[in-house]
Amino acid sequence: MLRDDLPTPALVLDAAAMDRNIAAMADFVRSRGLALRPHAKTHKSGEIARRQIAAGAVGICCAKLGEAEALADEGVEDIHLTSPVVTRGGIARLKALAGRIRLSVVVDHPDNARALDGCGASLFVDLDPGAHRTGVTSPDAAVALAKAIGAIGGVQYYCGSEQHIQSAAERRAVLADKTDYLRTVLAALADGGIEVPVVTGGGTGSFAIDADLGVLTELQAGSYIFMDREYRDCELGGPVFEQALFVDASVISINTPGRVTIDAGLKAFAADAGVPVVWAGAEGRYAFMGDEQGALIGSDLPGLAGRVTLVPPHCDPTVNLYDAYWVVARDVVVDRWAVTARGRST
Amino acid sequence: MLRDDLPTPALVLDAAAMDRNIAAMADFVRSRGLALRPHAKTHKSGEIARRQIAAGAVGICCAKLGEAEALADEGVEDIHLTSPVVTRGGIARLKALAGRIRLSVVVDHPDNARALDGCGASLFVDLDPGAHRTGVTSPDAAVALAKAIGAIGGVQYYCGSEQHIQSAAERRAVLADKTDYLRTVLAALADGGIEVPVVTGGGTGSFAIDADLGVLTELQAGSYIFMDREYRDCELGGPVFEQALFVDASVISINTPGRVTIDAGLKAFAADAGVPVVWAGAEGRYAFMGDEQGALIGSDLPGLAGRVTLVPPHCDPTVNLYDAYWVVARDVVVDRWAVTARGRST
Repeated sequence: MLRDDLPTPALVLDAAAMDRNIAAMADFVRSRGLALRPHAKTHKSGEIARRQIAAGAVGICCAKLGEAEALADEGVEDIHLTSPVVTRGGIARLKALAGRIRLSVVVDHPDNARALDGCGASLFVDLDPGAHRTGVTSPDAAVALAKAIGAIGGVQYYCGSEQHIQSAAERRAVLADKTDYLRTVLAALADGGIEVPVVTGGGTGSFAIDADLGVLTELQAGSYIFMDREYRDCELGGPVFEQALFVDASVISINTPGRVTIDAGLKAFAADAGVPVVWAGAEGRYAFMGDEQGALIGSDLPGLAGRVTLVPPHCDPTVNLYDAYWVVARDVVVDRWAVTARGRST
Repeated sequence: MLRDDLPTPALVLDAAAMDRNIAAMADFVRSRGLALRPHAKTHKSGEIARRQIAAGAVGICCAKLGEAEALADEGVEDIHLTSPVVTRGGIARLKALAGRIRLSVVVDHPDNARALDGCGASLFVDLDPGAHRTGVTSPDAAVALAKAIGAIGGVQYYCGSEQHIQSAAERRAVLADKTDYLRTVLAALADGGIEVPVVTGGGTGSFAIDADLGVLTELQAGSYIFMDREYRDCELGGPVFEQALFVDASVISINTPGRVTIDAGLKAFAADAGVPVVWAGAEGRYAFMGDEQGALIGSDLPGLAGRVTLVPPHCDPTVNLYDAYWVVARDVVVDRWAVTARGRST
């Protein structure tokens, strides 16, 4: 099938560009002596996870148990859960999954550590970098929790709020401060006689800085495989990643000069990070026009049924809207990959 | 199963409340001598469409062909497509669907009218109320398009931008102006000898006003079955609709005083219309904390693994994130209904 014959809106993946991104990150972490455990909440795809692991990743991260279950079903055998699992039903599912694959999970509360005792998953102490999302909030709490657990798998330290600081210098300065705190926690753990085999964290906005700072042993970057408007606006440093993920749309109305309406709206793009960027097929800017449509406003616009290609503002929640990637090589559709764990948010 | 044992985040539907909303709208349109054709882009569910039709709706609206195909597969036999279908592939699918069910579709361009000649669907002239999303933009263009079509199924006039004006008086004033323009178009069509069997439009924000204004013959409201934060903030007039749609979530972290973290973020709520409202289980406000989590900030907050119930800010794109509704009666889960057309945006 030709790309131009895809029903739209279509989630389109340039697999060659993605494979180059996978290779570039793999080369980078190898050159720095680090482990890579890419976050699969970005792609939710067994095919992509397998490619990352084939390129040298030690395993993957998942945000939710349902995501991990879906990717385990696709043959992924080493998964780290980056969010606590605390409900009774969740813990039962965690135990079942730990019987099938090598599994680790973060913990940030002693009650949860007790509930997970003997669960079969390796337990990581989650450290709050100051965002107050998850994680223990002091070195003393980290030591107490690690002692409650016994032998920990490692610690997790994910500076999420800092990933999208656009200036590289400013991002580096903030992360250097955050990493000073991480050193303090690790020193307290060492003083407490706690062995920390793995220090996992980092993202596409911080991995190069994290490598320079030299405290993390394992990087969790996810978005680098696809890229999006948010990360394109950041000076990332390290290898240069290509745009590999797109949404193709069609013009459905052309009645007003200077604008056309396309068939991609709030059900085609997650709207938390602004608007998509027009990549090809038009000269103009995008504006949301409700659940089902958007406007392209500009001067060089396609006609009725014309095609345009856009870059999502934020890749992870946009991918979660689609059942499949249409995999293209230039203008030809060469494959269709399921978004295996789409909607698996529990 | 008990509601409290659902894996979270869970899309939860109080079916009794929804059925009362369906009945209230059905009674209202019957008392005004109008037809009701509820928009299924809200619910994307065969079960709910069938309940609306059983209560007296003449059929349903769909926004996209894929949505209509999915609901036709569920036995819905009368569908109006509220967006133009213009691509070659789309027109082929439209013809196939028109061979299976009673189908109508809007048209806003003479090229599209020619392409749809003999397609088997009834063609409606789409009128632009000034939003410049779709629709012809003048009475003359409406007449010319209607003549190009021949016998039209009717006209569509959907004032989308006006639905969420919070003040009833202000919304009524704006819609009265918009409806004056609609009368002008209808007069031009009558002068041109064009018969207009149906004038379809309106939404949950405007249906009561549209009924008073007396020009629309068929109402397309959709969100009234569920309600959401946006419409709860509007003085709607007409029957009072109950909140029937919720997202239940669980607390996964409690380490910072005055706030807890829950397992529902940007993949659990569409973010285009602000934040969810806390409905039960906590006293506090919600803040997005990324793709997978949110914070509840307040004083009376649940403990680890505690449950909370939230109202989505915008129901349509939130429903589109979930595979199923968990149907509850008080605290008991009584059924699971597929979101049949989830992700069917093409």
